[in-house]
Amino acid sequence: MPKNNKKAGKNGNNVSVENEMDKTIISFIDYNDKKLEEKVIDNIGDCSKFKRKGTVSWININGLENRKEIEKIGKNFNIHDLVIEDVFDTSQRPKLDEFDSYIFILFKMLTYNNKKKKIEIEQVSMIVGEGYIITFQERKGDVFGDVRKHLENEKSKIRTQGADYLAYTLIDAVVNHYFIVLENVGEEIDKIEDRLILNPNSRILKTIHKLKKEMILVLKSVWPLREVIGNLRISSSPCINKNTLIYYRDIYEHVLQFIDAVEIYRDMISGQLDIYLSSVNNRMNDIMKFLTIIATIFIPPTFIAGIYGMNFRYMPEYHWRFGYPLVLGVMALIAVVMLIYFKKKKWL
Amino acid sequence: MPKNNKKAGKNGNNVSVENEMDKTIISFIDYNDKKLEEKVIDNIGDCSKFKRKGTVSWININGLENRKEIEKIGKNFNIHDLVIEDVFDTSQRPKLDEFDSYIFILFKMLTYNNKKKKIEIEQVSMIVGEGYIITFQERKGDVFGDVRKHLENEKSKIRTQGADYLAYTLIDAVVNHYFIVLENVGEEIDKIEDRLILNPNSRILKTIHKLKKEMILVLKSVWPLREVIGNLRISSSPCINKNTLIYYRDIYEHVLQFIDAVEIYRDMISGQLDIYLSSVNNRMNDIMKFLTIIATIFIPPTFIAGIYGMNFRYMPEYHWRFGYPLVLGVMALIAVVMLIYFKKKKWL
Amino acid sequence: MPKNNKKAGKNGNNVSVENEMDKTIISFIDYNDKKLEEKVIDNIGDCSKFKRKGTVSWININGLENRKEIEKIGKNFNIHDLVIEDVFDTSQRPKLDEFDSYIFILFKMLTYNNKKKKIEIEQVSMIVGEGYIITFQERKGDVFGDVRKHLENEKSKIRTQGADYLAYTLIDAVVNHYFIVLENVGEEIDKIEDRLILNPNSRILKTIHKLKKEMILVLKSVWPLREVIGNLRISSSPCINKNTLIYYRDIYEHVLQFIDAVEIYRDMISGQLDIYLSSVNNRMNDIMKFLTIIATIFIPPTFIAGIYGMNFRYMPEYHWRFGYPLVLGVMALIAVVMLIYFKKKKWL
Amino acid sequence: MPKNNKKAGKNGNNVSVENEMDKTIISFIDYNDKKLEEKVIDNIGDCSKFKRKGTVSWININGLENRKEIEKIGKNFNIHDLVIEDVFDTSQRPKLDEFDSYIFILFKMLTYNNKKKKIEIEQVSMIVGEGYIITFQERKGDVFGDVRKHLENEKSKIRTQGADYLAYTLIDAVVNHYFIVLENVGEEIDKIEDRLILNPNSRILKTIHKLKKEMILVLKSVWPLREVIGNLRISSSPCINKNTLIYYRDIYEHVLQFIDAVEIYRDMISGQLDIYLSSVNNRMNDIMKFLTIIATIFIPPTFIAGIYGMNFRYMPEYHWRFGYPLVLGVMALIAVVMLIYFKKKKWL
Amino acid sequence: MPKNNKKAGKNGNNVSVENEMDKTIISFIDYNDKKLEEKVIDNIGDCSKFKRKGTVSWININGLENRKEIEKIGKNFNIHDLVIEDVFDTSQRPKLDEFDSYIFILFKMLTYNNKKKKIEIEQVSMIVGEGYIITFQERKGDVFGDVRKHLENEKSKIRTQGADYLAYTLIDAVVNHYFIVLENVGEEIDKIEDRLILNPNSRILKTIHKLKKEMILVLKSVWPLREVIGNLRISSSPCINKNTLIYYRDIYEHVLQFIDAVEIYRDMISGQLDIYLSSVNNRMNDIMKFLTIIATIFIPPTFIAGIYGMNFRYMPEYHWRFGYPLVLGVMALIAVVMLIYFKKKKWL
Repeated sequence: MPKNNKKAGKNGNNVSVENEMDKTIISFIDYNDKKLEEKVIDNIGDCSKFKRKGTVSWININGLENRKEIEKIGKNFNIHDLVIEDVFDTSQRPKLDEFDSYIFILFKMLTYNNKKKKIEIEQVSMIVGEGYIITFQERKGDVFGDVRKHLENEKSKIRTQGADYLAYTLIDAVVNHYFIVLENVGEEIDKIEDRLILNPNSRILKTIHKLKKEMILVLKSVWPLREVIGNLRISSSPCINKNTLIYYRDIYEHVLQFIDAVEIYRDMISGQLDIYLSSVNNRMNDIMKFLTIIATIFIPPTFIAGIYGMNFRYMPEYHWRFGYPLVLGVMALIAVVMLIYFKKKKWL
Repeated sequence: MPKNNKKAGKNGNNVSVENEMDKTIISFIDYNDKKLEEKVIDNIGDCSKFKRKGTVSWININGLENRKEIEKIGKNFNIHDLVIEDVFDTSQRPKLDEFDSYIFILFKMLTYNNKKKKIEIEQVSMIVGEGYIITFQERKGDVFGDVRKHLENEKSKIRTQGADYLAYTLIDAVVNHYFIVLENVGEEIDKIEDRLILNPNSRILKTIHKLKKEMILVLKSVWPLREVIGNLRISSSPCINKNTLIYYRDIYEHVLQFIDAVEIYRDMISGQLDIYLSSVNNRMNDIMKFLTIIATIFIPPTFIAGIYGMNFRYMPEYHWRFGYPLVLGVMALIAVVMLIYFKKKKWL
Repeated sequence: MPKNNKKAGKNGNNVSVENEMDKTIISFIDYNDKKLEEKVIDNIGDCSKFKRKGTVSWININGLENRKEIEKIGKNFNIHDLVIEDVFDTSQRPKLDEFDSYIFILFKMLTYNNKKKKIEIEQVSMIVGEGYIITFQERKGDVFGDVRKHLENEKSKIRTQGADYLAYTLIDAVVNHYFIVLENVGEEIDKIEDRLILNPNSRILKTIHKLKKEMILVLKSVWPLREVIGNLRISSSPCINKNTLIYYRDIYEHVLQFIDAVEIYRDMISGQLDIYLSSVNNRMNDIMKFLTIIATIFIPPTFIAGIYGMNFRYMPEYHWRFGYPLVLGVMALIAVVMLIYFKKKKWL
Repeated sequence: MPKNNKKAGKNGNNVSVENEMDKTIISFIDYNDKKLEEKVIDNIGDCSKFKRKGTVSWININGLENRKEIEKIGKNFNIHDLVIEDVFDTSQRPKLDEFDSYIFILFKMLTYNNKKKKIEIEQVSMIVGEGYIITFQERKGDVFGDVRKHLENEKSKIRTQGADYLAYTLIDAVVNHYFIVLENVGEEIDKIEDRLILNPNSRILKTIHKLKKEMILVLKSVWPLREVIGNLRISSSPCINKNTLIYYRDIYEHVLQFIDAVEIYRDMISGQLDIYLSSVNNRMNDIMKFLTIIATIFIPPTFIAGIYGMNFRYMPEYHWRFGYPLVLGVMALIAVVMLIYFKKKKWL
Repeated sequence: MPKNNKKAGKNGNNVSVENEMDKTIISFIDYNDKKLEEKVIDNIGDCSKFKRKGTVSWININGLENRKEIEKIGKNFNIHDLVIEDVFDTSQRPKLDEFDSYIFILFKMLTYNNKKKKIEIEQVSMIVGEGYIITFQERKGDVFGDVRKHLENEKSKIRTQGADYLAYTLIDAVVNHYFIVLENVGEEIDKIEDRLILNPNSRILKTIHKLKKEMILVLKSVWPLREVIGNLRISSSPCINKNTLIYYRDIYEHVLQFIDAVEIYRDMISGQLDIYLSSVNNRMNDIMKFLTIIATIFIPPTFIAGIYGMNFRYMPEYHWRFGYPLVLGVMALIAVVMLIYFKKKKWL
């Protein structure tokens, strides 16, 4: 069935996919505790010869442009058609599908784009079989770089474990990266905090709303992962060794912790919105108070000046010797009385 | 029992049903992997002769006006009276009823009316038996058109599968259409986003409220579908082949994804409402600030002018040589001091 | 235990019970598929003689004043004391109590009082035994009228079914009436919608708040019914035939649908409140803008007029030939400049 | 472990405990269907001799000052240390602990202090064993007075039942008293309703906030009781007769009903807060509108008067015969035009 | 896997860790009912010799700087690597991990920093094995001081119980301390209450927002503890004696009670925010009303004064004998009429 028209959800996410590469890159790592082979391959025909007992093979596919080749891999490894379709539909929710001979895990990678000052969401899918892992990324990312380094280290624990442990390290790398992304958001929030006090303006409002929107998107992207890892942690699939389950439990707790942190950030952003609104309001009130004071202090004296600007013939004050200073005095008196009144009312 | 008086719920949905056709159209498709027969029938008497082993029959009924004929179909296929009543009561929630020899699925179709710029909700019911499907639509729609084309293609997968797979493709077509409808809403939201910055007016407010209301209606229409498909995906009905269940699981995830997207849109619309309100507020504040500045700058000089408009006989300033320019200078000074004060207070 | 002091909950509901009748009316219908006997009885002693095999007896009690007689019925049919107490305590939540030989169902009837323009909530209790039903209503209502007519029709399905089916038709009549009540609310909402655009005033605010309160009361009255019917639909009580369960499932869906509709109405009412508030605000802003424009346009010219009202001896402009028109021209110029400025700022 | 420092929760409740008595009063009632003994005892040594087969003993302890004596009772009846500690820690949540030979029930008593116009929350604990009940109250209360009267009546049902039924009547008395307290709140809400229309001031605001806070405290105090009674109603403890369970089910429904009523009140109070805020706002708007009208009507005429107060030599109007009345006419005209404009705009 | 980069969550918590000590201090207590040995040890090599049957050993580690030594302890007691990693990752959520030979409990300690007037959150982890407990604290705290004193008392109950009871007393000490911290918050809230009435200013607003944020952090820190203790209370681990479970049930109720209290505080803080906002608003309204009254009272008389400042030749009033007092009288009359109008409208 056509799924191309499911773009709405993705547009909703507002995640631009500009820097997508032109070509799908397939990299291949095959290792056991004694040796490690690594290469970039063009043609999946090469792939099958690596499939042998006793090693773990990790095929990483960057970019989903080369649909044909990817479908070939699917057939090579006997993957269900719907799974391959899910790989291409990049607007999926995180999910876990357990099949007889492999597990399909789909989740989101978050990266913080420093130039655009925003969080980018990328879909990562992973097929975990006995002795092999296939990962699909929308774009070339460097989140798995650390795992590769660990793999190259002959003494690292990964080298002695199976594909299920490699899957754990990969998911763990992604989840750890979530916290780094969140740290960037935390810094933006701190900046806003400072600017809120110094100079609340409508640009801050936009930044706050942008952050709020991003937090919603992040939460929606990560929330279902909770269930995915929650199920993985108690999985009885033959692809996952029982000793590895405790590591998935560990990731599970990190996901919960991340969700907690996102919710704390959301609360903080809401709080900042409240502070912004009340500080704008306060400022407006200050301006209004100033107007009130100026206006009410000058209104009565201006009225008096108006009276003595009248041209009646019979106005005895006009002829008084000290009429003018007297009137000025009365005016000053009224102004002073008003100021005292304001002071007493704590309006000043 | 009479259900005609259950219109309230439907009015609540505010979905107009003007373009309803005058006549119920019954179309009929009968196929297996080798041949396909398709025709529009008037009389359900014709129908029974298509019922034979080895093919899948799909009876599609557009329009519910011809109640008698539809009830005849119900009896023909041995459908429970309550099910037929549910077909006619177009204000139902999505639901799944499993009977011994068939499954009754009721759900909502969303279409975006481009002229009226609004989402229309139509009820679709489906009876899935062994070897046959009956679908009921309120109005003539073209959502099933793609499925028909697929059917006509001899090599398509549907031709080799049973009625349960046809049911999947039909539901999938409807759910995929949800995302297209959502895309239209997404475009409206984008338009509002632009207009919010350029010129926030009360027309935007109405559009935002309209969208908000529509999102509520959409959510209410689709939310129970989550449970319906959720149950279908683990159904043990004899009408559904176990190999087809994985496809229903696929739809289930699309429904979840759709609900997520709707909720993201709702959050975005709420955010826009907040932006609208604060931008209207900002504008008002700008106007008030301007008034304040003009008023407070002119009030003291006006008062001074008032003083020197008084007619006291003994006002020595009147006779000063440079009284007039002096007073003008004082006035200018006061205005400048005030402007500086405003600047310092960041009110300007 | 005394329950007379549990009126608080009822007052909370704010439902007046003025038109309560002075006398309890006990009506009695006894029927099977062949004959139907109907009469109004004074004394419950008459009642027992109708208890015979092969017919369904429906005792309907309107008004709870005659406590003694009702308690006698309770003993006659061997009803638990607490059930009878529940019948009299008209502030109960809907509930289902299954006993060995009967089922006790308590729910709320909604009626729309057209004169007072408000929804009235009345408690209805129902005891369903094998071969008999006893219904208790607070006041004389006509919701069961339709059921009575159906009963009198010899060919109606009810005549061939047991007491459990009669119970279904009675509950269904009440639930169907919910939708009629909701339709009245829908009309009120539509009226408000129109008035909100034409003339938002504080009377609308009160109507909106009244509707909001009513929707809360309706929801609280009907919400527990969801669970009641939900349990009834899977009941294993001997009083309910398994073939009847599907009808209760039908009511269950109507209750869900009703709750959905009420929630949509609540959302719509909230939306109207928002629209009201922002339209009041808009209006206020329009007034303030008008003040600002008038004031700021006239303040500078008035100041200039003040200057040339000063009485300094040496003011050369006084003696200019075209001093007066020049000053008028300057004033006009300032006003025009300001208007252009306002226009540019889109404040006009 | 020390629990003295758990006062924070209690302070949070803001419940003053001033009128606590100086001395713990222990009253003792021992009864069966034939006789009843009642006395106030000083020393718990007396207590044991009442422990005999065939009667129900109710020890009621008013005031928790005499810790030693109460601990002695605990030992006498073989009560767990933690239970006795819970009795003294008056900031507990309602809870149910089932032990082998007794049940410990802890809940809150609400009383409405008419002088202080506020709800007071008191902790009541109850130990229900076979043949005996021990109740602990913080202060001397009269809620159990009714139960005592019932006990003294030889024909009352309590006299023929066991300790579990007495426990039911005591809890029922407390729960019934909840509704009386709520009635007082209802009266306060009605008073506010009236005053909101006549004269909204900030004192009402405080009353509304006080009620809101009280409703939160009440809800928090009663909410866990739902679970307590919910568990009690399906208890399999030997201390509770199966025939009594139906009475606990009855209380359970009252608790649900009470919680519903409290939530309705909370919604009503929130609604009143909204009405208050919008009526304050309306009033302010009325004042501002009045200012606007006065100001804008007088600003242009005042400006005209200013113009004709200028002292230019060449102002031909000064010498016109009807200059003065003409100008007055123009002023009046402007004012009238403005009034018509306001009227048309519905600002008046 | 590296967890160092999981600081984001911690920054999110905004808990400063300045006063962290330079050195990890390991203290050691070994006791049974007859003797107690206590010392501070440098080297974990010493540790193993205390491991013997018949005593309970409590190793308390203050400060996590000495990672190597702590890892050595882990190996010594055969603790899983992930557990040791969790000990160092101080941004964990409270959690319970049951292993075959020990239980790992991780929770948060709250302390109120009196100088900075804020709540500090510290992570405490605890390994409970048979006959030994290891506790890890981020900083040197004195919350366990009471427990130590109890231990030193030969007659205290702890001395006769196992490690599981010691674990209970330690957790209980922490949970009891929660209430003390809350008491400090309660005092701050009381202070705000007073200041809100006397002088609402923006500093109060900041304090309220700070408290709000703190309550969120506290809730997030303690909320998962509910589940942790909830599971502990029904644990079937061999490390926990069945008789001790009732004590964990006791803590469980304290945690629920604490969460209730925090939520009440949150509601109170929200209420205060509302009061603050409406009191600021009220004040502003008072100022605006004052402006309105002054302005509207003086506007008409000022206009009249303007009229009689005009220089028309033919203005008969100028020559009236009592023109001046008459005009003054008219002005006074207008002012009085206005004041009466305001009074009647209750604007004064």
